[in-house]
Amino acid sequence: MLGPRRGWQALRRCVSLPRAQREVRLRVREALGAREPAGEVKVQGWVRSVRSQKEVLFLHINDGSSLENLQVVADPSLENRDLTFGSAVEVQGKLVKSPHRMQNMELKAETIRVVGPCDTLAFPLKTKERHPLEYVRQFPHLRCRNNTLGSLLRIRSEATAAIHSFFQDNGYVHIHTPIITSNDCEGAGELFQIETSNEAREPAEKTHFFDVPAFLTVSGQLHLEVMAGAFTHVFTFGPTFRAENSQSRRHLAEFYMVEAELSFTESLEDIMQVMEDLFKTVTSTVFSKCPRDVELFHKYIAPAQKDRLEKTLKNKFVIISYNEAVEILKQASQTFTFKPEWGCDLQTEHEKYLVKHCGEVPVFVINYPYDLKPFYMRDNEDGPQHTVAAVDLLVPGIGELCGGSLREERLPFLRSRLQRYLDLRKFGSVPHGGFGMGFERYLQYILGVENIKDVIPFPRFSHSCLL
Amino acid sequence: MLGPRRGWQALRRCVSLPRAQREVRLRVREALGAREPAGEVKVQGWVRSVRSQKEVLFLHINDGSSLENLQVVADPSLENRDLTFGSAVEVQGKLVKSPHRMQNMELKAETIRVVGPCDTLAFPLKTKERHPLEYVRQFPHLRCRNNTLGSLLRIRSEATAAIHSFFQDNGYVHIHTPIITSNDCEGAGELFQIETSNEAREPAEKTHFFDVPAFLTVSGQLHLEVMAGAFTHVFTFGPTFRAENSQSRRHLAEFYMVEAELSFTESLEDIMQVMEDLFKTVTSTVFSKCPRDVELFHKYIAPAQKDRLEKTLKNKFVIISYNEAVEILKQASQTFTFKPEWGCDLQTEHEKYLVKHCGEVPVFVINYPYDLKPFYMRDNEDGPQHTVAAVDLLVPGIGELCGGSLREERLPFLRSRLQRYLDLRKFGSVPHGGFGMGFERYLQYILGVENIKDVIPFPRFSHSCLL
Repeated sequence: MLGPRRGWQALRRCVSLPRAQREVRLRVREALGAREPAGEVKVQGWVRSVRSQKEVLFLHINDGSSLENLQVVADPSLENRDLTFGSAVEVQGKLVKSPHRMQNMELKAETIRVVGPCDTLAFPLKTKERHPLEYVRQFPHLRCRNNTLGSLLRIRSEATAAIHSFFQDNGYVHIHTPIITSNDCEGAGELFQIETSNEAREPAEKTHFFDVPAFLTVSGQLHLEVMAGAFTHVFTFGPTFRAENSQSRRHLAEFYMVEAELSFTESLEDIMQVMEDLFKTVTSTVFSKCPRDVELFHKYIAPAQKDRLEKTLKNKFVIISYNEAVEILKQASQTFTFKPEWGCDLQTEHEKYLVKHCGEVPVFVINYPYDLKPFYMRDNEDGPQHTVAAVDLLVPGIGELCGGSLREERLPFLRSRLQRYLDLRKFGSVPHGGFGMGFERYLQYILGVENIKDVIPFPRFSHSCLL
Repeated sequence: MLGPRRGWQALRRCVSLPRAQREVRLRVREALGAREPAGEVKVQGWVRSVRSQKEVLFLHINDGSSLENLQVVADPSLENRDLTFGSAVEVQGKLVKSPHRMQNMELKAETIRVVGPCDTLAFPLKTKERHPLEYVRQFPHLRCRNNTLGSLLRIRSEATAAIHSFFQDNGYVHIHTPIITSNDCEGAGELFQIETSNEAREPAEKTHFFDVPAFLTVSGQLHLEVMAGAFTHVFTFGPTFRAENSQSRRHLAEFYMVEAELSFTESLEDIMQVMEDLFKTVTSTVFSKCPRDVELFHKYIAPAQKDRLEKTLKNKFVIISYNEAVEILKQASQTFTFKPEWGCDLQTEHEKYLVKHCGEVPVFVINYPYDLKPFYMRDNEDGPQHTVAAVDLLVPGIGELCGGSLREERLPFLRSRLQRYLDLRKFGSVPHGGFGMGFERYLQYILGVENIKDVIPFPRFSHSCLL
């Protein structure tokens, strides 16, 4: 019998034959991007179309690495009845220059193996059909194989990476702010509460798992403020939650927020500069990294979006004060459902008007009434109309994309508030501020997608938690 | 009165004076890394020490951008009583070469402004004291200003970025798998259940927010499998949850997992290769990006770790089968609390022994008994000892760092299971597999940190949800 050590060494040798000696596997994106014809390669993916002619069999295959399909050219003898729309295949062959102008390379198949057949009749996605987003939304487990959702999720992935890079490149420390919290940041709407499943079943014995009631976070701001007191510049990018019973196309129960917090800020301008840089850098990166995916949206979903966004990326964002915003609204020829009045919150109709008034570009509105905003925002100590250093970034078609403020760093202004919040002011307090950006709203805006449920992989909202 | 448009344009001019014209702000890290002396600069941060001599005042300041402090040299006349350990300061002055060997640059102060004083007596962190991690853990809102936690969180941030880059560079699509789910992936321990806070208060009216009971996710695997059916290679990196009533140093109620799923895998080797590459790439990146922070751990917390890890990064990981593992354990001179027997789960004591037996290096254990593993793992169809293609990666001091498997892609093997899971096999099913890595365990391992509560910004565990 083999001694134990000899045992694993033998196994090591047996399983670790390097792949390179066996085959060259290419993703569709790599095959399409190849400059030169290549010898024996293997491409794997799902069949998007089959066209059988007398002399030749054409397949289009896609593996999710790009919107474009790879054309496979084969001898008709390679056809078989399992080779249908939706089936998974492995194609071995040679990569050659394509004679067609539409593509660079095509694969001349030597063997085609159906790895997983597809019951085409039962499959809810149909070949060459442009399904409405409402239709594909019913199939949370299959909609990613639809072109639009495929592009969306590749863009979402690139945007995620670009957001991490932006902050990392600018010296921010990334913080995983907690999902479960015993705080409620700003009483922002309804909360989700957490119990162990036992507690939920038998609420009689009321001992909480954490000894205190615990909730799903509505914002990482408080935890970021803690960290900004040590690292100066910090950010988080994670899920946040609202238990609002809303079926609107703008709300989800679970959504993602990018939040940043900056110590030693001296004015709202510091905060606005970061928001604007973040938006422009991430958007440019996404546009240059997945041009074809973005084009799908700007061609079929929101045709006006492209030119507008290109203009937006070139110009400085507009800044108006809340006071000016109210003046603009009062002078508007339009009649509003909510009469614009100093001291009242801006309604969606007001935000839309302001954005239109400024030329359908992003607009910062700054310095809101003191009484409208939460306790932690910095008092501007102005008069007679008392304001705080708050800023909202409004964008066309969406409304509020980001919200931020300078935080009140002065201990006397905060007395009688949360003890830990005060503690942060007692031990080397610094002027600071921050903001949050709704990631789904960001994607809706840059891509012109109407419904927020179509920009997140698995949407959660009231009455719906599929999968 | 100004017209509205002229109004915001005027404001735009007034607030957008570029910072560069006013001052050069440097982070401590930038100041320390400067090659040449620099004219007027401003550095902001928190005082780490004050040393007043007759002729000169020395300050050390830190802004969280690095472990090292910047030395400030000033005239004693600049001293003031608020300039204490912990206070926040702004120092304006000239950056000059330091005469001391310990540092490259120092700041010759012209002005020192105390931005936020610190009540030193009340401040729980003391100057120059090396507080035990248990001590600082009591102050979730202040412990990030402790050196060890500061280094930890910078390393955590770099590791997070490196994980995103690793997968992005290798053509994986990032997926935000949902936090709230109506599934329970593998019945993994106790779940947290979610209710709106109203429901929690009045459980009599039992209409769920989502119409069905909803839970916090224990794994993103199912959702990743959905996505691997469209994008071939996908990953997620987010929070997962267990409601286990454990006070152990290895468990948290909320922790982070890196999970990947790969379609068209042909053997466990495909999966193990990704695990090994991920570990090595991320670890090398972290070591080279924050050498001083890593050094703190390898010098004071886990002195043996450095050499071992360097060896680990250079060698291939060991692979043994479950069968071999049991043989090794049976032949061991050591007596175990749980007698090693084919068909039984490996216990912590067994894992420890195996890792030691192989030379205190990472060890893959593959091909576990069919009856030990969940339904979705791929049947090896071997005999007489029936196994599945599962793999665990065991590492010294931690135990299981990653777990993965080939998934059962064959429809007949999965009948009578979850309908959606079956659907994924009906429409172009492909051989695939994946794995998960506990991010906190990863950090514990590479840094040699004993307690998992010290590698996450805000630890949550039973009876504790501070902040």
